Amino acid sequence: MENSEELKLLGFWVSPTVARVEWALGLKGIKDYVHVEEDVIYNKSPLLLELNPVHKKVPVLVHKGKPIAESDVIVKYIDETWKNYPLLPQDPYEKARILSFAKFGDKLFDDAFTAMWSQGEEKEKVVKSTIEEFEKIEEEIKGRKFFGGESIGYLDIALGWISYWLPLWEEVGSINIFDPIKFPGIASWVENFLSQPVINEKLPPKDRAVEYFQERRAFITSVIYV
Amino acid sequence: MENSEELKLLGFWVSPTVARVEWALGLKGIKDYVHVEEDVIYNKSPLLLELNPVHKKVPVLVHKGKPIAESDVIVKYIDETWKNYPLLPQDPYEKARILSFAKFGDKLFDDAFTAMWSQGEEKEKVVKSTIEEFEKIEEEIKGRKFFGGESIGYLDIALGWISYWLPLWEEVGSINIFDPIKFPGIASWVENFLSQPVINEKLPPKDRAVEYFQERRAFITSVIYV
Repeated sequence: MENSEELKLLGFWVSPTVARVEWALGLKGIKDYVHVEEDVIYNKSPLLLELNPVHKKVPVLVHKGKPIAESDVIVKYIDETWKNYPLLPQDPYEKARILSFAKFGDKLFDDAFTAMWSQGEEKEKVVKSTIEEFEKIEEEIKGRKFFGGESIGYLDIALGWISYWLPLWEEVGSINIFDPIKFPGIASWVENFLSQPVINEKLPPKDRAVEYFQERRAFITSVIYV
Repeated sequence: MENSEELKLLGFWVSPTVARVEWALGLKGIKDYVHVEEDVIYNKSPLLLELNPVHKKVPVLVHKGKPIAESDVIVKYIDETWKNYPLLPQDPYEKARILSFAKFGDKLFDDAFTAMWSQGEEKEKVVKSTIEEFEKIEEEIKGRKFFGGESIGYLDIALGWISYWLPLWEEVGSINIFDPIKFPGIASWVENFLSQPVINEKLPPKDRAVEYFQERRAFITSVIYV
């Protein structure tokens, strides 16, 4: 398939957006790539800053020497470059619908992460609105195995953080957003999604991940609430 | 070209993201569409909430009865549906580079808008970081007529707010972000961009727009800084 020299992923072990890229590569059957682990919190490497001077973030996918930044853009690039197992539909309207919903998911991602570290009234407000927004996710998945239908697609990858990271954030932030009784469609999707080897082989170990987010939370609150 | 019944744009006269869609349609030579003006601040219409229940925002483009939300997704849809005058390159890498840079531009858009209404230390901080980020825009445009090269492309549309809305926000917020001496490449792009009839015929009247953003600013600060 690919020469490993040709494909390199700058990542970070606990990042849900890096996981998106790993999942997309896995679904395309691409296993032969170099993973470069970045210390994105304390010490960004010169390589990362050289390859992604604009966003200065992981993931960065380097294909044949050319760097691509931003997980959603990378997943689209992967989908256009390797045509086996399509992640996005060809039809412009169906594609637009998915991309638009994925953007809503990204806002929800930010809100859920904020819910983890925020305090007091701000926390109450963001938890409440995030739960309300989850109803739209429930409506979208209801009656389907995956957001992509019978198989995992672009939207499953984009919303993948809900399956594994959200419960970690809930634990760390002592919050309750995702109620499987209230959202049975999402609950069943989580099970389907996490049962796929291509997905679950790329998840960070739970204990270490909880520890990591506890540290992040402590750091963020120390900066914001002084 | 199109039957006007087939194409409808839910917009708002002063919105820079609605302008993106109008520009994209204009560049494709599509003039025969229905513009539905929304009162997005005080009274969102049942039509808007029905067509865009997820984001509840303008712009919404309705094509043959099917609604599409989010300006970047709409512009991509327009580009894939009407093939004359391509906005994005075909090459997956060139396309990814542009989409990634456009996302950076959207972050800058949020920062510049925040700079308009924020106060005190927060304002200082966001103005300073926004000016620093503008250096990346300058680097991207330097030596080129448009971000798209010799003609207006996707990135010109995405960054179009810099040409007209940014000066309004600077005036309303009494801030100084864009210095034409420091950023000569952007200054020359602004001139090239605004000299195109397809662009400048879709700009809101300056005085009314300033008045509108003054009201927005007063409203936001009254909610945030109490």
